[in-house]
Formats: sequence, C-alpha cells, structure tokens
Amino acid sequence: MAKITLAGAGPGDPELVTLKTLDRIKTADCILCDALVSDELLKYARNDAKIIFVGKRAGKHSMKQDKINELIYKAALEYENVLRLKGGDPFVFGRGGEEYQYLKEKGITPEVIPGVSSATSAPLLAGIPITHRGIAKSFTVLTGHEMKDDTINYEALAKLNGTIVILMGIGNTKKICDKLLAKGKDPKTPVCFIENASVKNERITKTTLLKAAETKEKYDIKTPGIIVIGEVVNVL
Amino acid sequence: MAKITLAGAGPGDPELVTLKTLDRIKTADCILCDALVSDELLKYARNDAKIIFVGKRAGKHSMKQDKINELIYKAALEYENVLRLKGGDPFVFGRGGEEYQYLKEKGITPEVIPGVSSATSAPLLAGIPITHRGIAKSFTVLTGHEMKDDTINYEALAKLNGTIVILMGIGNTKKICDKLLAKGKDPKTPVCFIENASVKNERITKTTLLKAAETKEKYDIKTPGIIVIGEVVNVL
Repeated sequence: MAKITLAGAGPGDPELVTLKTLDRIKTADCILCDALVSDELLKYARNDAKIIFVGKRAGKHSMKQDKINELIYKAALEYENVLRLKGGDPFVFGRGGEEYQYLKEKGITPEVIPGVSSATSAPLLAGIPITHRGIAKSFTVLTGHEMKDDTINYEALAKLNGTIVILMGIGNTKKICDKLLAKGKDPKTPVCFIENASVKNERITKTTLLKAAETKEKYDIKTPGIIVIGEVVNVL
Repeated sequence: MAKITLAGAGPGDPELVTLKTLDRIKTADCILCDALVSDELLKYARNDAKIIFVGKRAGKHSMKQDKINELIYKAALEYENVLRLKGGDPFVFGRGGEEYQYLKEKGITPEVIPGVSSATSAPLLAGIPITHRGIAKSFTVLTGHEMKDDTINYEALAKLNGTIVILMGIGNTKKICDKLLAKGKDPKTPVCFIENASVKNERITKTTLLKAAETKEKYDIKTPGIIVIGEVVNVL
C-alpha cells in the first residue's frame, strides 16, 4: 500500500511552507491539492507527478468531502507516494481529521505534517499580534461559513474577551457581528478584514464591530478572507 | 540602521521551519534566540554569526523582557542583519508584539515572519485535530502561567464548548482544571498533556478533566508542555 501524507502548505506565500512539507512535494508521485495551495509550490513537484485539484472554496464547492476522501484512497491504490496538500494547517478547519479517519478505516495510517495556519499568520502579516500583554490573553478561532446550527455560543465568545479570528466568514459578516453585538460585545471593538493573506492581492481593511457589515459592502470585501475582532487590531 | 527580523522557528523539529525563516537564519550576522529554538536550526547560521541566547522558560526566567528588548536594539546598532528567532510563532504568546513596539519606537520597523505555532502543531503531532466536524467548531488558545489576575473568563471558556489549548500551563494544571470544573465543564472531558512537542523526548499523556491534576503528579509531567482539553483528544 502507498504512503500517504496529509500536509499543510501554509497561508499562500510559497516561502511559508515548511522544509518537511516541501520535501514531500518534491518526492510525491501524486499530489491532491486545495484551491488555496499556491501554483508556485507545485513547481517543486516531480515532472512525472500526477496533480489532482480537489479545491473547495466558500460559495464554490467544487467537490464534496466524500468524493475527496474517495479520490485520495483511489490515488493510494494507484501511486506509491501520495501527498494530500492542504492550505494552511490540515487540522485547523481543514477537515484533515476526517480524511485521516477515512484512510485509517481503509487500512492506511497517513503521516500528518502541520503547516503555518492562516488563522495565526494572516493577522501577523497584517501587523496584528493575536495575543498581546495587557490586551488579549487568549484567542479563539472559528469558522463563519455555517450559521444555521447554533453550535457556537456567541454569548460565551463575547464574554471571553479575547481576540476572535473567523475563517470563511466574510459572507456572514453581518450575521456574526449582529450576534456578537446582541450578546453585549462593545460596538467600538476594532475589526480587521484580511483578504488573500500573504499573496500579492492581499488587502487589509479596518473598521469596528458596529460598522463591519457596512464596510464589507462598501469595499466589496470577498472570500477567501479572515476576520479579526479585538483590541489587538490597532495595537501596533 | 540594521535590518531586524522577528521570525518563528516552529515547534522544535527543525524540519518544521519555513523556507523564509531558514533564509533569514542563513543570512543573519546576529541571531538572538529563545530556549525553545532547536540547536539543529542554528547549524544553518553563518560561521561568523553572533548567537545570543535570551531564552525564557516557565519557572526559569533567565531574562526579563525589557532586557531582551534592549539586547535586540543593541544588536541592531552593532550588526547589519539581525534575526530575533522565537519558538513557535512570534505573535502567539511570544511577546513578539512587544518587541515590535519597542523597536518601532526606536525607529526600526522589523520584518515579521510567522511560524508553525505549537498551539496548533503540538496537538496535530499528538494525533489530535483541534477542530473536527460535529465535535469541535472552535478552539481557544490561552496561557496558564499566570493565574493571579482573573483576566480569563473561565465560565465563558467552559460554555464556549470548543477545544481548549493551554500553553505554559503544566505548573497550574490543578488550578486550571478546578476552575473549569467549578464553571460546569464536564469532568469526563478528555485532557491530553503534550511534553516536548515534535522533538525526541516528546511524551503524550491522556486523562480526563477530573483526573488531570492527579495524572500530572503521577507521571511527573513537566514544562515545556501543552494541555489540550476537549472531545477531540480521543477522536482519531
């Protein structure tokens, strides 16, 4: 049976890949990769490597997770050294845990390599320390693409009083901010939108919790992007 | 004036450094580094590079932050290309934000390079996805080394019901777990201690919130380590 690696490619900038993931890119004979993985990274792949795009992006679900799982397994039957390359970190909202479970049930235990998560690096690259002495003693990361089920306790999130980092939430900016405001979060809390973190068309837009939904419309802020909520937005 | 870079070295395994940080290690003429930075990474440094250890470790504060800030600035006056190399990510509880502020006030704006944070990678390397569909929709990262001031709202943390990742908290295991239990967190919630993440003497110890303090004593669990609290501990 093939060797399978689930690896994180980092936030987008190809220089933010780790040595370990780069080695796996160079040696794999089949790479299944996300929409958020940089083309420049794939230039390191072997000439004869089979590249399969299984990209998903908010609003444009090109492939269901079940289908992706099956494709990885199929690749494992056909190739010797398979790399599942994911944007950011495979276990930070990457559904890497599900891919791991699926493969393990099929009898293959994948190697897992962490990556620089966009949850922490996108704010950093926008000049925002997600923790800062006297200002934020914790940070919470969540996704904002599903607002139907109320599995996030927004009251607790508002009261925790740490930095909030929301992945895949641009489309639900109004709903998210309304929930936090309704639970007592200060309307003056700084908010920062980071689009296309670490790549050439990166854009950083700062506003407040009260005005965030309006700002999002006014500047036509789009996915893929991250929302940072907290006093740290303006600390540096 | 010198160029200064604040960069993250990743969780310990030298293969988990990014290409960008590695480039800065290879080119710097002065490197100020933390206790958690691997010696193997420093082998990439120039032969003539000045290496200054400014390590801090819980319980063994070898240097105050003010002193570190001064040393970085002093290095900037003396050298051309200064690298401040920090374990993990510089803005995830690394006090990198403070170093940035200090240097900016002195007239030097540092370049900042993210790293693979131990907050996300230590759990991954222990086989724990910090987020998992249907199990954890958020994760919160905090430090546990200061328990004097009650800036963390443990009630909100308990109610948020996401994965909790605690850095520098091994020494306060009992206090942390008692607070979460007092605020209604289920005593059966799985807990995992990860000592020396990603390096050769890594040790993973699983327990429950109720028994965590006892487990910590029984197995003599020590810093540097991370505590992961949540159902994700046993998901894979």
